[in-house]
Amino acid sequence: MESKQVEPNPYAKNCGSRQVIDRIGDRWSVLIVLTLADGVKRYSELAQRIEGVSQKMLTQTLRGLERDGLVTRTPHATVPPRVDYALTDLGRSLLGLVSGLEAWATSHLGDVEAARARYDAREGRHGSAA
Amino acid sequence: MESKQVEPNPYAKNCGSRQVIDRIGDRWSVLIVLTLADGVKRYSELAQRIEGVSQKMLTQTLRGLERDGLVTRTPHATVPPRVDYALTDLGRSLLGLVSGLEAWATSHLGDVEAARARYDAREGRHGSAA
Repeated sequence: MESKQVEPNPYAKNCGSRQVIDRIGDRWSVLIVLTLADGVKRYSELAQRIEGVSQKMLTQTLRGLERDGLVTRTPHATVPPRVDYALTDLGRSLLGLVSGLEAWATSHLGDVEAARARYDAREGRHGSAA
Repeated sequence: MESKQVEPNPYAKNCGSRQVIDRIGDRWSVLIVLTLADGVKRYSELAQRIEGVSQKMLTQTLRGLERDGLVTRTPHATVPPRVDYALTDLGRSLLGLVSGLEAWATSHLGDVEAARARYDAREGRHGSAA
């Protein structure tokens, strides 16, 4: 109601775009969106593909993605019950970006780990022991 | 030492690339990297540009970016002391991605907020009141 439509600006304190950046840049969101890239998946398929994700984090991330309009959730009244997840058009519009995040992370992991080792060696020498 | 070099794979439970995704997709990392895109900045300039970031989060994120080899930190022995931050080549290689994240977040904020309003109206009607 009182939303004066100013341009979204993530440098501004209360702009909702900051939260959107966190949503789409989060590891679980990235892996879920990428897993759904090739079509509908059941909850159990997502849990299996994304190793080590807790049920809590998977459920919570899926709910957030659904609420943000990126994923649809379709429960089926089967026995046992089945829940399907799929990308919406909005979610699909993220594919290039999240593929880019995954590609950067995997191709530069070695650089990042080498930098960390150098930093830790340096800070260990100079830094406080606290 | 005992790092058998397997291909980084963020779907695997203990792969460090998951942490790298979180690092580069985090709101503060994105805003810092973008702010440094046009050159060296002082700590105080970053704090001013990125409205509402706490000193704790800014310091912590800068330290993480430095440790991961994305940003350099250069203290100057002036009075008052001055600390400059700049992107490394590795940090610069992120610019396309983080610009993309920012652009998606700002251009789709309206869609995301509309989806949330629909979700909340629906869940409020059907959902548990708990």
